[in-house]
Amino acid sequence: GYAWWFSTDMFRTDNTDERTARKRSIGYRMSQHPGQLTIIYFLVLVAFVTALLLTPIATQDHTTTPFSTAFFTAVSALSTCGISIVNTTQHWSIFGQVVLIFAVQLGGLGVMTFASLIALAINRHLKATQRLLTANELGTNKLNEVRSVLAVVLTITFSIEAITFISLFPGLSRVNKGDVGKSLWESLFFAVMAYNNAGFTPDGAGLYVGRWEVGMPIMLSAFCGTLGFPVILNLWRTARAHKGPRHLNLHTKVTLLTTFIIVLISLCWFLVVEWNNQALFHDANIEERMRRGVVAAVMPRSSGFDLSWVPKVSEPTKVFMSLVMFIGGGSTSTAGGIRVTTLAVIFLVCKTAFSGHTDVNVFHRRIHTRVIMTAVSITTSCLALVFIASIALMMIENASFSHALFDACSAFGLGGYSVGVANADYPASLYVLAFTMLIGRLGPMTIAYAVGRPNVVEAVHYPTDQIVVG
Amino acid sequence: GYAWWFSTDMFRTDNTDERTARKRSIGYRMSQHPGQLTIIYFLVLVAFVTALLLTPIATQDHTTTPFSTAFFTAVSALSTCGISIVNTTQHWSIFGQVVLIFAVQLGGLGVMTFASLIALAINRHLKATQRLLTANELGTNKLNEVRSVLAVVLTITFSIEAITFISLFPGLSRVNKGDVGKSLWESLFFAVMAYNNAGFTPDGAGLYVGRWEVGMPIMLSAFCGTLGFPVILNLWRTARAHKGPRHLNLHTKVTLLTTFIIVLISLCWFLVVEWNNQALFHDANIEERMRRGVVAAVMPRSSGFDLSWVPKVSEPTKVFMSLVMFIGGGSTSTAGGIRVTTLAVIFLVCKTAFSGHTDVNVFHRRIHTRVIMTAVSITTSCLALVFIASIALMMIENASFSHALFDACSAFGLGGYSVGVANADYPASLYVLAFTMLIGRLGPMTIAYAVGRPNVVEAVHYPTDQIVVG
Ligand SMILES: [K+]
Ligand SMILES: [K+]
Repeated sequence: GYAWWFSTDMFRTDNTDERTARKRSIGYRMSQHPGQLTIIYFLVLVAFVTALLLTPIATQDHTTTPFSTAFFTAVSALSTCGISIVNTTQHWSIFGQVVLIFAVQLGGLGVMTFASLIALAINRHLKATQRLLTANELGTNKLNEVRSVLAVVLTITFSIEAITFISLFPGLSRVNKGDVGKSLWESLFFAVMAYNNAGFTPDGAGLYVGRWEVGMPIMLSAFCGTLGFPVILNLWRTARAHKGPRHLNLHTKVTLLTTFIIVLISLCWFLVVEWNNQALFHDANIEERMRRGVVAAVMPRSSGFDLSWVPKVSEPTKVFMSLVMFIGGGSTSTAGGIRVTTLAVIFLVCKTAFSGHTDVNVFHRRIHTRVIMTAVSITTSCLALVFIASIALMMIENASFSHALFDACSAFGLGGYSVGVANADYPASLYVLAFTMLIGRLGPMTIAYAVGRPNVVEAVHYPTDQIVVG
Repeated sequence: GYAWWFSTDMFRTDNTDERTARKRSIGYRMSQHPGQLTIIYFLVLVAFVTALLLTPIATQDHTTTPFSTAFFTAVSALSTCGISIVNTTQHWSIFGQVVLIFAVQLGGLGVMTFASLIALAINRHLKATQRLLTANELGTNKLNEVRSVLAVVLTITFSIEAITFISLFPGLSRVNKGDVGKSLWESLFFAVMAYNNAGFTPDGAGLYVGRWEVGMPIMLSAFCGTLGFPVILNLWRTARAHKGPRHLNLHTKVTLLTTFIIVLISLCWFLVVEWNNQALFHDANIEERMRRGVVAAVMPRSSGFDLSWVPKVSEPTKVFMSLVMFIGGGSTSTAGGIRVTTLAVIFLVCKTAFSGHTDVNVFHRRIHTRVIMTAVSITTSCLALVFIASIALMMIENASFSHALFDACSAFGLGGYSVGVANADYPASLYVLAFTMLIGRLGPMTIAYAVGRPNVVEAVHYPTDQIVVG
């Protein structure tokens, strides 16, 4: 079950009766209604951050930012998407940039916490329907559960951010020629942005992709961010116990394998299709090309750093990148998209069907029917959303389909890249993209919550009847 | 069950024992292995028709057609797709045109017969797994089943084609100013092309959309062709028995409702988005616009007639039409795409999931889990195919994504339209599109066959384990 990433000793079970007090606490409500609370959390933060960005002190020249721009930037930061329509350092003051850092941090922590609570709630429900839970397990103290989740999320997030910060400082010091203040500030900025997968950059120059002492920590931190912290926790614990990869849990195995396949296909794509792309490869040698290829393969999955070469890729690559961004990263992570596990489940259903089997198995475990229904619902509704958003963008801006699709997928997958459709000149398209980002942030996990815990007991089981498909 | 469109009195059960003789007969094999036989039937016909079209007597100027063009035209005719890359009357001689008519007719009859046998085989299997079949039903004489299916398919096909032929003749006589021979030939050509949903036209001028005495029978016949003959048979029998629409069977209800919704959305789309399109509406009055709108909404679903205005629509409309062509028409019909019932099942899964239910119900009947798995497998693999084909076309011809997607969806959905990507100057893209057409013709039904009759009994039921999606 899901308890794998909470070893039992993490819970301090507290069975003394203080139920009335608990019911009033936010923690109790978080554990009872994580789906609704997630939406409230993000909408309140969007309103608050938009208001702060609208103040004149948030901008360099102390003017008021247009509402559409402030709203879009707030959503982009809170959803950790990172598409910027103004130059981050030239437009926003230090106050504005601090607001952005806090927005990204609160957005990232929020989504990781709520997504974990939702996953726990779904698992509890699935286990209960299968009568696998003992009474003791069902009675797990929910308030402590919230505390434990928060503690784990905060510990992992700040640990990785601190490691990234320390790793970045020497490299950035050299880039900034010993300017300690600027280097500290940029290290902090990149550390927060990288793990939370938000592609805002402090100097507008993108990732220092040629300087590996800067590029490597950012890429690794962003990659960890796309895995989701249950995977990181499981990897850490398995390594610490000196156990082999076979002892990893199902979710970790599926996430890692799917991620590996997607990154490998992307790497091959960039090396083959974009071999002659000057903006990406600069006619570099093989080793440098491999490095740049890995960055190109890892980054679009959610981080959004290194924008310079993106609009210069060929049209087929734009379509391919749209697909990669649509798939996104791992569940309960700061990445977006339909998530790699959703894709894996859909793929496993096809594999099972084609091979004439009936049980959807992977790594000697069976996938629950409700998880399959969840994956189908998420994929279908998100495909419909991206399709409608792309057509709306085409109509608003007269953009080509590949460009509209790219920016719609980037917004939905929280990729953070743009080929120019996200544009302050078209406020209507900014609202379309902001809405797409919010769905990308909240949609799949709230769908999973709604679907994973069916609230209707079927009064009548109708007989099946034949319907011919295909 | 599926026996609804074969009322029991249609079977003349013949239980005398001639098993050895039967096992050698083609009919017996057709009932035993409809999936494999479908593929063999089409591949043999493709080779045969390509060879005929390669002969000099097949062309007007008695030259040899390039292999890629002959192969593409053969596949286009046999799959009843109807994309033409040469002008049908200027390039092909009367012999060549007769070959095309026979190819379309054999392709249409073949797919309807095999698809029905496959649907029967799946239904027999589903019923057997549910222990709903009596021993008597399981022992249904399979040879007679094949004969019955063939009889029904031939009767319905030739009846509708004859009605279309008779309805078209007066109108075409007027168009051809009394030329009886030409009018008879064109009526025959249109009658075969319309019901089989192949968009080849005898004069290259497309559907006489302004002349309703010609346009209306063609549209109605093509529309019947997209429903699939089990639906037509069920409608006919229900009407003859003076019963209300509530007595229609589940497959008919779902097909009709989904078709109605798709046509209605398409009609609204064309009237709203293409209101100012001169090529489509010619600044006509409201009544004429409604007529032309209905044709525009019905035709892309598979028929492919009336090509003149298609390349002149706006970019968003091209994307929208791609989606409509991808969905296609009814199961066991001459239409292509993933089929409307597949879309309906996917939609019903989402609706069930979102409303917190567990059983996928529609019209007081439950959809079998294997049908859901079939629908998911068909949709996923066909999406992947169209995506890969589009990217290949973009690379071969440097085409834009919307154009490549349009022609790929037209080929897969057997729509028969083209925005110019299907082009004799690029043999490589012709092979890509021909492959896409063959998959569009055979893919969904063979997937349904493979998935609907699982051939593996699970030796071990693994325990479920948690995997977080979304
Ligand atoms: K991002
Ligand atoms: K067609």
